[in-house]
Amino acid sequence: MEKDKVKIGIIGAGRIGKIHADNLLRNPLAEIVGISDLFAGPELQSWAAERGIAAVTTDSSRLIAMSEVDAVLICSSTDTHVPLMEQAARAGKHIFCEKPVSMDLQQTLAAVTAAEQAGVKLQIGFNRRFDHNFRRVREHVQMGTIGEPHIIRITSRDPSPPPAEYIRVSGGIFMDMMIHDFDMARYLTGSEVEEVYALGNVLIDPVFAEHGDVDTAIVTLNFENRAIGVIDNSRQAVYGYDQRVEVFGSLGNAAAANDHPNTAEISTAGGLMRDKPLHFFLERYNEAYVEETALFIESILKDTPVMVGGYDAVQAERIALAARMSLLQKRPVKLSEVPGMTVGTQTAAP
Amino acid sequence: MEKDKVKIGIIGAGRIGKIHADNLLRNPLAEIVGISDLFAGPELQSWAAERGIAAVTTDSSRLIAMSEVDAVLICSSTDTHVPLMEQAARAGKHIFCEKPVSMDLQQTLAAVTAAEQAGVKLQIGFNRRFDHNFRRVREHVQMGTIGEPHIIRITSRDPSPPPAEYIRVSGGIFMDMMIHDFDMARYLTGSEVEEVYALGNVLIDPVFAEHGDVDTAIVTLNFENRAIGVIDNSRQAVYGYDQRVEVFGSLGNAAAANDHPNTAEISTAGGLMRDKPLHFFLERYNEAYVEETALFIESILKDTPVMVGGYDAVQAERIALAARMSLLQKRPVKLSEVPGMTVGTQTAAP
Amino acid sequence: MEKDKVKIGIIGAGRIGKIHADNLLRNPLAEIVGISDLFAGPELQSWAAERGIAAVTTDSSRLIAMSEVDAVLICSSTDTHVPLMEQAARAGKHIFCEKPVSMDLQQTLAAVTAAEQAGVKLQIGFNRRFDHNFRRVREHVQMGTIGEPHIIRITSRDPSPPPAEYIRVSGGIFMDMMIHDFDMARYLTGSEVEEVYALGNVLIDPVFAEHGDVDTAIVTLNFENRAIGVIDNSRQAVYGYDQRVEVFGSLGNAAAANDHPNTAEISTAGGLMRDKPLHFFLERYNEAYVEETALFIESILKDTPVMVGGYDAVQAERIALAARMSLLQKRPVKLSEVPGMTVGTQTAAP
Amino acid sequence: MEKDKVKIGIIGAGRIGKIHADNLLRNPLAEIVGISDLFAGPELQSWAAERGIAAVTTDSSRLIAMSEVDAVLICSSTDTHVPLMEQAARAGKHIFCEKPVSMDLQQTLAAVTAAEQAGVKLQIGFNRRFDHNFRRVREHVQMGTIGEPHIIRITSRDPSPPPAEYIRVSGGIFMDMMIHDFDMARYLTGSEVEEVYALGNVLIDPVFAEHGDVDTAIVTLNFENRAIGVIDNSRQAVYGYDQRVEVFGSLGNAAAANDHPNTAEISTAGGLMRDKPLHFFLERYNEAYVEETALFIESILKDTPVMVGGYDAVQAERIALAARMSLLQKRPVKLSEVPGMTVGTQTAAP
Repeated sequence: MEKDKVKIGIIGAGRIGKIHADNLLRNPLAEIVGISDLFAGPELQSWAAERGIAAVTTDSSRLIAMSEVDAVLICSSTDTHVPLMEQAARAGKHIFCEKPVSMDLQQTLAAVTAAEQAGVKLQIGFNRRFDHNFRRVREHVQMGTIGEPHIIRITSRDPSPPPAEYIRVSGGIFMDMMIHDFDMARYLTGSEVEEVYALGNVLIDPVFAEHGDVDTAIVTLNFENRAIGVIDNSRQAVYGYDQRVEVFGSLGNAAAANDHPNTAEISTAGGLMRDKPLHFFLERYNEAYVEETALFIESILKDTPVMVGGYDAVQAERIALAARMSLLQKRPVKLSEVPGMTVGTQTAAP
Repeated sequence: MEKDKVKIGIIGAGRIGKIHADNLLRNPLAEIVGISDLFAGPELQSWAAERGIAAVTTDSSRLIAMSEVDAVLICSSTDTHVPLMEQAARAGKHIFCEKPVSMDLQQTLAAVTAAEQAGVKLQIGFNRRFDHNFRRVREHVQMGTIGEPHIIRITSRDPSPPPAEYIRVSGGIFMDMMIHDFDMARYLTGSEVEEVYALGNVLIDPVFAEHGDVDTAIVTLNFENRAIGVIDNSRQAVYGYDQRVEVFGSLGNAAAANDHPNTAEISTAGGLMRDKPLHFFLERYNEAYVEETALFIESILKDTPVMVGGYDAVQAERIALAARMSLLQKRPVKLSEVPGMTVGTQTAAP
Repeated sequence: MEKDKVKIGIIGAGRIGKIHADNLLRNPLAEIVGISDLFAGPELQSWAAERGIAAVTTDSSRLIAMSEVDAVLICSSTDTHVPLMEQAARAGKHIFCEKPVSMDLQQTLAAVTAAEQAGVKLQIGFNRRFDHNFRRVREHVQMGTIGEPHIIRITSRDPSPPPAEYIRVSGGIFMDMMIHDFDMARYLTGSEVEEVYALGNVLIDPVFAEHGDVDTAIVTLNFENRAIGVIDNSRQAVYGYDQRVEVFGSLGNAAAANDHPNTAEISTAGGLMRDKPLHFFLERYNEAYVEETALFIESILKDTPVMVGGYDAVQAERIALAARMSLLQKRPVKLSEVPGMTVGTQTAAP
Repeated sequence: MEKDKVKIGIIGAGRIGKIHADNLLRNPLAEIVGISDLFAGPELQSWAAERGIAAVTTDSSRLIAMSEVDAVLICSSTDTHVPLMEQAARAGKHIFCEKPVSMDLQQTLAAVTAAEQAGVKLQIGFNRRFDHNFRRVREHVQMGTIGEPHIIRITSRDPSPPPAEYIRVSGGIFMDMMIHDFDMARYLTGSEVEEVYALGNVLIDPVFAEHGDVDTAIVTLNFENRAIGVIDNSRQAVYGYDQRVEVFGSLGNAAAANDHPNTAEISTAGGLMRDKPLHFFLERYNEAYVEETALFIESILKDTPVMVGGYDAVQAERIALAARMSLLQKRPVKLSEVPGMTVGTQTAAP
């Protein structure tokens, strides 16, 4: 690309869309030329005006069609991702899409294929790959500090469950929440998952049971490189967002602990106290969000592979589907039982 | 018991037998009257003489038969446990037996039943229940600090694998090594295991494969109280003995980290450094060994239930057998598929 | 102030001036209308243009005189602070001034008095008061968690010494470096310093001796509330920026440890490793810089007292002068031996 | 010494005398042949009988005179140390003496000289030198890991003050409590103290003021190797025994944190909690006490220098006296102002 700036259209002005917008406004290599939202109104107009974003529309198609738009960030609801991706691909626009691409693997495959055939960049919003802690663990794995990976452990627990209306459409704990951890497992080990086994229960709120979902789950993983792993998820950790990983290998162990708002340790007659971890994803992954869009911009300008692409979306969704199948059928499920990607190439090793 | 001291015979003068002996020598409520070992010779004679232990014999039956012996510690090889337990029970001697009781659940059941019918105390050498860290975690679980248990995680990794000749007769990773963690899982949650799923690989040394064993394993657990859990084991953590547990519940999380030989933190241009965890079980569980025999003595003198009894041995062995079955059959296995205890009562809640 | 935005002129376009500028550009309550620098040239012009800052000048007087300027940030070299402050005060502009105000206490007093008499806000750049860790310690002190303060300990070590040309004009370790810690001591205890004793040596680089300075120093403090304290400084901690505080009191201890770039802990056969603390003040106090100017803006808009005012500048400088006197005269020096503030009132308790 | 065991007489059957006795009873290289105490009665008789200690007497002279006694442990009250040491030296018995040797430096010098002239071993009870944490810090200093020492920081705070009757005869905070830290400072840096400055207050209990003592103190240190240091002491840390050291040098920092009874970390909605540090010296220095007498025995059997000898006692007392002088005279005091050792040689570098 013979440009010095990437012109961006943002689709979806919800919380995450606005976060990406504010991060990109500080990025001298990006320019936001418009934002679309189904419910765009005076409030969004003034929000955009304050930030010097010229175009505000309810029609994402118009935004995609704008000739000055080089790339779109798809931050709208999950059910809109696939048609928007296909539309953007046809228009030759680079795509950043929030996870998951869709709840339907065939549709995800189609959308990813469309982007690939159109020759546009496609980056998926697996923001945790850009976290300072997990990246450092991966660096040590890649440098060989801990040797061959043998065991991977991931803990991921939210401070509180989402609202009931969200639970209904979330796609379930594996597709909505643990999908991040499935991607993390691939990212940290640099290996593909071959088989999963899932167990789970409703221990927090019966509303999960009403939607055939669980709120507490453990999934084991067999990797192609023969490592084994385990992920645990809870929808409610009252002490805050619990995000830890650990890769154990032939030469050592690399473990990332939680981030805290401060290091103050208080000692009293009752014991020692520290403040809880950073509350939730906005606080914990604040810098990771900045980093992920910055690297998306950079990969467009330099025409280099994205750090997390369509293949990664497909693989994480396949693992989520296998985990769901395992939970329902109470047996280990091979990833090969879930239809995979038939065309295209992997943008990068996991 | 109308006595102020318990007179002890120690069967088996290997490493653990001698540790128990030295610990009991410092216990004013115990007196060691004899020690037996198949290979007792001049070395053991002089070892015993230095400690004022009068009787040294190659014949454990003689030791058991000695009228002044109130209780025996069975520290000989696993295949001798059951006949010795039965003999001791018949002789009305209290029994402390190292884990596992046997490799054959029916035999274990028979031996436990024999002790129960004879009305003697039977304590099993699950030393980790007496560890300062794990006990503190259990206390918080029992006090309700973390609410209802939802997820339990146990990591247990040895610094280096046992010798090849031991691997052959070890009974496999689940019966030999993870059995401690199965007991720990019951101890920490206060609940019984209902179902397990095991995965594992040979990643460290092909010798494990030669004996149909694995050296790296993960086992998931479904508990009767609906909590779920996971244990990971490795036969070789090059950074030392890694012994951590964590109980996550509705009101919080209780986690025990490793013990270290010192707290010194060294900061240099290259980063921050600490010494590795305490090397192995002798260092890490040093105090737990003291505590477990002290409480055995106390439960004899006060005629109170032991902290870990025959039922606990049976349950841990059943879980180990279920895990083995799961690994071989590549499916989750219910504990009810493994024959259980048909007589007797549980000495205490797990 | 009946406005919804504060219009800012920045004096001095060095590193810290530019940091404040970039932070204020993201603050919707501030608008930067101009920047001055003695050496303003094409580079600064284009830097300003990129940021939409209209006025760029070599003449700070012109900036101060601009009618739309509500407040100035004085980020130029220390010797220019006093005349600029007096000029700004006469022009009725609010003032944010980097520390120290000057090397000459009489001049500092004059400038602070000028600001006070002009009725403008004056905030001093003691950025560490806004640090997340130290603020949390202070909160606990103020909430009474640790009771009455008895002992305060501050460690403050730079990763590497400044260049020789800077050392010459720095004013010495107490006025240049430890002045932050003197302010921190007042901030954390909420009490004034009565007496100091200083010891120090040249252990890192003989260049310090050439300028009558030391590179390693310890200063003890007697506070009016009878607490005692100690600060240690080094110009070179090869493991990075070391910034720790601790307040010990009748009911406990509140201690703040260093911040690290990540939480990854690597365990290998050689031991456990972590990355060094955040490198230097730009990394460590990144958020504190954002916070200090944001609160300056807020105190102008809401007409509330600043968090750190002229009195605080004077007191920190008096302690620095007393420490210098103590080092030279090898005796404890009372703060009352250093001329104090004769007019005006304290903007807030320390 | 052509023996394989050292025969010991213990003088003083208070808490510390009994601890040493129990530790030596487990030491195969030592044999306790008798114990003396001014108030020896039936209770001590039966205590000794249980342990197989034959001789119990109220007359320490008799114990010293016993021909089979090779060495004495002087654990009686401080005012008896000097005459007992001189008597033991004359009798050719090796001496282990609790700290401080005496409150009168001239007497201490005389006693140390007597031991030296008699050619007997003299070890002083500075138990902290044998602590696992501090020893590891010293090892790193000696290995050069942290380069040349620049700054040393020692924090030493007791959980609660001693009883009023003890305070009266304690010799004051410097001679009674900080004397351990003075020795630690010499031990960690391997350098002698040249000058001290002391500040302190009565913040905990007015009873200290009644005896001309303080309960909270900071002392700065100038070392011969040009390092500088600081020690802080409090008679009451409500969160438990606080024993930390830190040596900062040209190549890094070595810091020892507190020991805790367990590693359990509890996370709840209110924050993270850990149990307080080990309560007091008996818990914290439990292993150090074992180690110090074991090494005393070893240095007798192997005829090697003791780890902490008479010269160390003298130096620590001189620093304590200088600190006292500094506090009273409100000025830095050189160690050379306190009369030193005129005869004899140093047993080992600090």
